[in-house]
Amino acid sequence: MNRREFHKTLGAVLAASAFPGKALAANDTQATSAPASAGTVAATNAASQIAMLVHPAFVTLDLIGPHQFFTSLGNVNVHLVWKTRDLVSSSNGVVIQPTTTLKDCPKDLDVLFVPGGLEGGTALMNDAEVIDFLHDRGQRAKFVTSVCTGSLLLGAAGLLQGYRAASHWTVLDLLPLFGAEPVAERIVEDRNRISGGGVTAGIDFGLKVAGRLRGEQHAKMLQLMLEYDPQPPFQAGSPKNAGPELTQKVRDFRAPAVAAARQAALVAQKRLQG
Amino acid sequence: MNRREFHKTLGAVLAASAFPGKALAANDTQATSAPASAGTVAATNAASQIAMLVHPAFVTLDLIGPHQFFTSLGNVNVHLVWKTRDLVSSSNGVVIQPTTTLKDCPKDLDVLFVPGGLEGGTALMNDAEVIDFLHDRGQRAKFVTSVCTGSLLLGAAGLLQGYRAASHWTVLDLLPLFGAEPVAERIVEDRNRISGGGVTAGIDFGLKVAGRLRGEQHAKMLQLMLEYDPQPPFQAGSPKNAGPELTQKVRDFRAPAVAAARQAALVAQKRLQG
Repeated sequence: MNRREFHKTLGAVLAASAFPGKALAANDTQATSAPASAGTVAATNAASQIAMLVHPAFVTLDLIGPHQFFTSLGNVNVHLVWKTRDLVSSSNGVVIQPTTTLKDCPKDLDVLFVPGGLEGGTALMNDAEVIDFLHDRGQRAKFVTSVCTGSLLLGAAGLLQGYRAASHWTVLDLLPLFGAEPVAERIVEDRNRISGGGVTAGIDFGLKVAGRLRGEQHAKMLQLMLEYDPQPPFQAGSPKNAGPELTQKVRDFRAPAVAAARQAALVAQKRLQG
Repeated sequence: MNRREFHKTLGAVLAASAFPGKALAANDTQATSAPASAGTVAATNAASQIAMLVHPAFVTLDLIGPHQFFTSLGNVNVHLVWKTRDLVSSSNGVVIQPTTTLKDCPKDLDVLFVPGGLEGGTALMNDAEVIDFLHDRGQRAKFVTSVCTGSLLLGAAGLLQGYRAASHWTVLDLLPLFGAEPVAERIVEDRNRISGGGVTAGIDFGLKVAGRLRGEQHAKMLQLMLEYDPQPPFQAGSPKNAGPELTQKVRDFRAPAVAAARQAALVAQKRLQG
């Protein structure tokens, strides 16, 4: 883009990020969370349509990391989607309001996104309403994406068959049940599938997807605005860095939840093969 | 802590993070977001009390980064505090529910936290109800903390006089109006004040505060659980990395909002001196 376009986009982006309503009027773009009619087909200059699933016991940061980048893209509608618009409680007690329902969510999406939350996701791996939604939107979405254990739900919806994918390190070995190849990397891209690792990987993922949707220069602008210059005070963010003892403790403690997820995944596997 | 205590803590932490209600019953700790009676004084073995301000147009990720760490501490009550318990909309359209009010918030806190959101914060720099709340709780809190432009609100409440502090890079030069020394670092600690830089700095900040509250080993456990092993796909997260052109563009665009914040800060300065 040229300098003028860049500055115009910058304006929309920064304003949208700071104060949507006010900014978007001034910049003639659509509200970041304004409802869109179902079935909207994205066309040149049409707002990007991004749907993010918010299910009971989702992990808040899994959702909000990417959401902060997505809502800063400019000319975008970001939908928080659940079965109803009733308040939903995350795994650590943040109560938020969905902006639309599975039924009313636009049918043609630029990005379909699923956050993690192992117990919450396990409960949905064979939920017809959710699986049908993901399968339907995932077939046409430009990008089919997840962070953390969200990739298990994508898998249960039959969207990762033959794809490489990331997940939280404790559940990577469940991905083959859905025909996916587990990859222990921060962000995994395979054709139009983009998946992130556990929780905080959503920040790196959000920045990466911003680049895919708007280009590297625009993504860097968002990175500067959100001051993403990570400097962790400790180095224990991966099993390799944390060492075997700490890794085993976390793995042992999560074993029951992982076992329950495996059972649900086996049911899903049969469903997908049947 | 010894091995048994560590494992017990690990259990509470991981469980609380994943599925509070269920986990805490099993581990005999308090719910992460259960209401606490006003005026509770923290004692040994009492739950830590953490209050996080949620004001209209707060920046979602400023809040949720630290919140994900705080709610994973185990034996903690994390309060989302506003004037009423009516739904509050963040700057990018996430509608969340406060868990308590300024009036009902515990009076003796382990951590007082203020997120950023420049326009939203500017509107509160001279709001008596909010400033009185921050000043009152801040005088007794074990740690007085902020992320991003939240440090401006701490300053407006008279809580940074003579302290070093961080903020979003675009507004660092406003801190001296409150008698604070601006520091362009990711996390700034000065006695019991801990402040983070812009937005995503809240992840580093949350991990740091977790270490201050529960020790380094516990913090590392959370880091592994939240898989905080950042790998940004681009390098533009600071003015230095982004370069002068991009930095100036962002600065120019934010100039009106920063100017408004300066005006409010000047009013606050007079109030604090008078």
